[in-house]
Amino acid sequence: EIKSIVNDLHPSDIAFILESLPVNERQAVWQLVSAEHDADVLLEVDDWARESLIQSMDHQDLIAATEHMDADEIADLAADLPADVIAEVQKGLTDEERAQLIEAMGYPEDTVGAIMDFEMVRVREDVSLEVVLRYLRRLHELPDHTDQIFVVDRQDKLQGTLSLSTLLVREPDMLVSDVMVTEYLTLSPLDSDADAAGAFERYDLVSAGVVDDQGRLIGRVTIAEVVDVIQEDSQEQALSRAGLQEEDIFAPVLSALRNRAPWLFVNLCTASIASLVASRFEDTVSQIVILAFLMSIVAGIGGNSGNQTMTMIIRALAVGRVTSSNAWRLVKRELTVTFMVGACGSLVAASFAWAISGSLAIAAVMMVAMICNMLIGAALGVLIPILRDRFGKDPAMGSSVLLTFATDSLGFLIFLGLATLFLM
Amino acid sequence: EIKSIVNDLHPSDIAFILESLPVNERQAVWQLVSAEHDADVLLEVDDWARESLIQSMDHQDLIAATEHMDADEIADLAADLPADVIAEVQKGLTDEERAQLIEAMGYPEDTVGAIMDFEMVRVREDVSLEVVLRYLRRLHELPDHTDQIFVVDRQDKLQGTLSLSTLLVREPDMLVSDVMVTEYLTLSPLDSDADAAGAFERYDLVSAGVVDDQGRLIGRVTIAEVVDVIQEDSQEQALSRAGLQEEDIFAPVLSALRNRAPWLFVNLCTASIASLVASRFEDTVSQIVILAFLMSIVAGIGGNSGNQTMTMIIRALAVGRVTSSNAWRLVKRELTVTFMVGACGSLVAASFAWAISGSLAIAAVMMVAMICNMLIGAALGVLIPILRDRFGKDPAMGSSVLLTFATDSLGFLIFLGLATLFLM
Ligand SMILES: [Mg+2]
Ligand SMILES: [Mg+2]
Ligand SMILES: [Mg+2]
Ligand SMILES: [Mg+2]
Ligand SMILES: [Mg+2]
Ligand SMILES: [Mg+2]
Ligand SMILES: [Mg+2]
Ligand SMILES: [Mg+2]
Ligand SMILES: [Mg+2]
Ligand SMILES: [Mg+2]
Ligand SMILES: [Mg+2]
Ligand SMILES: [Mg+2]
Ligand SMILES: [Mg+2]
Repeated sequence: EIKSIVNDLHPSDIAFILESLPVNERQAVWQLVSAEHDADVLLEVDDWARESLIQSMDHQDLIAATEHMDADEIADLAADLPADVIAEVQKGLTDEERAQLIEAMGYPEDTVGAIMDFEMVRVREDVSLEVVLRYLRRLHELPDHTDQIFVVDRQDKLQGTLSLSTLLVREPDMLVSDVMVTEYLTLSPLDSDADAAGAFERYDLVSAGVVDDQGRLIGRVTIAEVVDVIQEDSQEQALSRAGLQEEDIFAPVLSALRNRAPWLFVNLCTASIASLVASRFEDTVSQIVILAFLMSIVAGIGGNSGNQTMTMIIRALAVGRVTSSNAWRLVKRELTVTFMVGACGSLVAASFAWAISGSLAIAAVMMVAMICNMLIGAALGVLIPILRDRFGKDPAMGSSVLLTFATDSLGFLIFLGLATLFLM
Repeated sequence: EIKSIVNDLHPSDIAFILESLPVNERQAVWQLVSAEHDADVLLEVDDWARESLIQSMDHQDLIAATEHMDADEIADLAADLPADVIAEVQKGLTDEERAQLIEAMGYPEDTVGAIMDFEMVRVREDVSLEVVLRYLRRLHELPDHTDQIFVVDRQDKLQGTLSLSTLLVREPDMLVSDVMVTEYLTLSPLDSDADAAGAFERYDLVSAGVVDDQGRLIGRVTIAEVVDVIQEDSQEQALSRAGLQEEDIFAPVLSALRNRAPWLFVNLCTASIASLVASRFEDTVSQIVILAFLMSIVAGIGGNSGNQTMTMIIRALAVGRVTSSNAWRLVKRELTVTFMVGACGSLVAASFAWAISGSLAIAAVMMVAMICNMLIGAALGVLIPILRDRFGKDPAMGSSVLLTFATDSLGFLIFLGLATLFLM
C-alpha cells in the first residue's frame, strides 16, 4: 500500500522524499520505488544522495534504469555509475549517441558543455512553415522545453532560430528564412554555466543553442538546467562562507567531520595567532585588567563591520558590478560610511568602557581603537574579495578567514598598543 | 554617438549598465536612452536603482513610458510612480485592464499575485486543434513564455492545459478535450512566491496558471519572473546574514548608514554584555593574565563551529528537509559531529595554551571549556533557526546574533568559571 502511494508521486517528489530521509530509511523507500521511476529519480536527486541509491541497486537494476536515458543524462550520472554498467550501456547506444556521450563527458564541471543536451529540432531555411509543421507532426513528440527550432545549413551551421510562437502565428506559406530570427544568443560549450545562467536571467530565455567554434550547432541548454545551476551556486556560496561543502545532513558522522574540521582548524590557528599578538601586551593587561574584557569588543566589531562591507562587495562582484575603474571609489565610499558608523558606535562603546572602568582615558583609547579597527575591516572587506576575484579565487570562502584574522590581530594590537602608549 | 551605442543595446543590458554607475552618471546615461526603451529598462532595473531613474524623468516622460505597459507591469512600478502619473495612466486603460491593475496592486509582496501577469491564451475544450491553430494565427503574436494554452469553460474555470508541443504534433482534426492535460499544477494568488519557485524548479515548468478559490483562471506566472524571485531571495538571504538589506553600492553615504548601523549596534550591545560577563572574573584574570588571551579563542571557536551547524540547518530548512520528527535526530547528530571535531581541535588548542602558559592545568581547562562551548554552539545552531522558523521568523537574520551572543558569553563564563574553580 505504501508502495502504491510512493509510486503515484511525481519522480521529483520521490527524489525530494529520499533526500529528506536518513540513509537506511532512504534505501528502504528506494526499494519500494518501481523500476519505471528509477531513471527519473536518479537524474533528479541531488549528487550527495545519489551515491547511496546507486549502491543499493544491482547490476541489472542499473542497466534497466540507464539504458533508455539520453546521452547527456548518462554523462551526468557517469561519475557515480560502476564502470561495467557504463560499458554495457554504451553498447546499446547508436554511433551518434555514443559520440554525444563522449562529448558530454569531456566537458569540465561548471561549463555549458556539462549541462547541455542534444535534443534539438533542426530545419532548413528554404522550406515553408507548412513543411515545418508537417515535419513536427511526424516527430509525434517535441523535446522538453522546446520553445524554438534551430535553423541550420547543410554543414549544421546555425543560421537562425524559429520560435514556436512565430511558427504558430505566421502564415504557413511563408518561408522559414523570412520569419526566422537572425540575432540570437548562442553559447559556447566551454562558457561557464554561471555566465550562461546570467544570460538566461537577463534575456528571459527558455533555451539557447550551443555552437562550436565553427558555428556548428552541437547542443542546447534549457531553463530547467539553468534553474538548477542558479540554485546550486547560491547554495554553494552560502555554504562556502562557513567553510562547508554540500553535505548529506543524515550522512555518517565521519563524512561530516571531513567537511567541517579543516575550516575550524584554520580558524583555530588564526585565533591562536591573534591571541599570541595580544599576549605580547601581558604587562599592560596585568596592570589594567579591564582591558582584557574590552579588547574582544574592539576585535569583534571590526570583524562584523568588515563582514558587512565584504558581503556587499561579494554580491556586487557576483553580478559583475565591480570593475577596476570603480574599485577605488568603492574603497573610499566604504571608508566614509564606516567612519561615520564607527564614530557613532564608538561613542556607545566608550561610554560602556567608562562605565565599567571609571577611566576616561580608557574610554578614549577604546574609541580610537574601535574606529581604526573598523576602518581596517572596511578596507580589507573591499580589497580582499576584489583581489581574490582578480586572481581567479572564489571570493566568498577564503575572504572571511582572512578578514577575521586581520581584524582580530590588528584589533588587539591597536587597542593594547594604544593603551600601552597612553595609559602606562 | 555614445547615444546610438547605448540605444543599440538590449534594454536589459542598459538596465545593467545603469545599475553599475554612480547616481550622477546613471542619470546622465539615462538621459541618452531613447524613449522607446524607457518602459523596458524601468521594468528590468533593480528596485534600488529605479527610484533614481524615475526622479530624473518629468511627468510627460513617465506617461509615455507607462501608458503602453500591461496592467501587471504598471502594478510593479506603482510604488515608485507619482500618484498623478498613475491616475493619468489609469484613464487610458480599458475596464478590464483597470480591474487587473487593481487586482495586481492588491496582493502583498512575495506572493504569487504580485508576480503573475494576465496574458493567458484561452480556448474551449470542444473545438478542434485546427480551430485553435486558426485562432492563434489571428492573434499575430503570442505572449512571452507561452508554452501552454489554458482550456477554460464559459465561467472561465480551468479545465485543462494544452501545450504548444501537443498542439504542433497531434492531428489538427482532434478535439482539444482529447489531447489536453487534466493533471497540472495551479497556483493560488496568495501562495508564497518562493513556494511557487520551488514548484517550477521541481517540475521544470515554464508557466503555470493562477486560479482563484472557485477554480477560475485569473492569471499566469512565467519562469522569467520565477528566476528573478530565486535570485532575489538568495541575495536577500546572503545579505540578511550580515544584517543588511539590498543597497545601491553607489548610494549616498546616509542611506548606507541607515542600512548598516542597526545591526552593528546590536552586535556592540551583545559584545558588551559578553565582556560584562567576563569582567565578573576580574580577580581570576588579574592573577593569571594569560587567561585573558586564551578566552577569546574559546569564544571564537564556539561561534565558528555553531555557525557551520547553523548554515547547514538553515539550508535544510529552506528546502523543507527539516521536520519536527527529525529535529531531535539532527540535534543528536550535530552534537556527535561537534564533539568529535571539538575533541581533536581542543587537543591543538590545549597544546597552544600549554606552550604559552607553561601550565598543564590551564591547558586542561582550555580543553574542557572549548569542547563545552562548541557543544553549546552546535545545540543552538540547530535549535535557534528551527524555533525562529517555527514562529514564522526569518531563520537567517536574527539567528547569527543570538548564536554569537551565546557562544561569546557562555564561552567566557565556562572558561573563566572553570579556571576560577580549579586554578585558584
Ligand atoms: Mg527501486
Ligand atoms: Mg533536486
Ligand atoms: Mg537533466
Ligand atoms: Mg556548479
Ligand atoms: Mg550533463
Ligand atoms: Mg533531456
Ligand atoms: Mg529576467
Ligand atoms: Mg531617457
Ligand atoms: Mg536585473
Ligand atoms: Mg521576494
Ligand atoms: Mg507584478
Ligand atoms: Mg508581461
Ligand atoms: Mg528542475
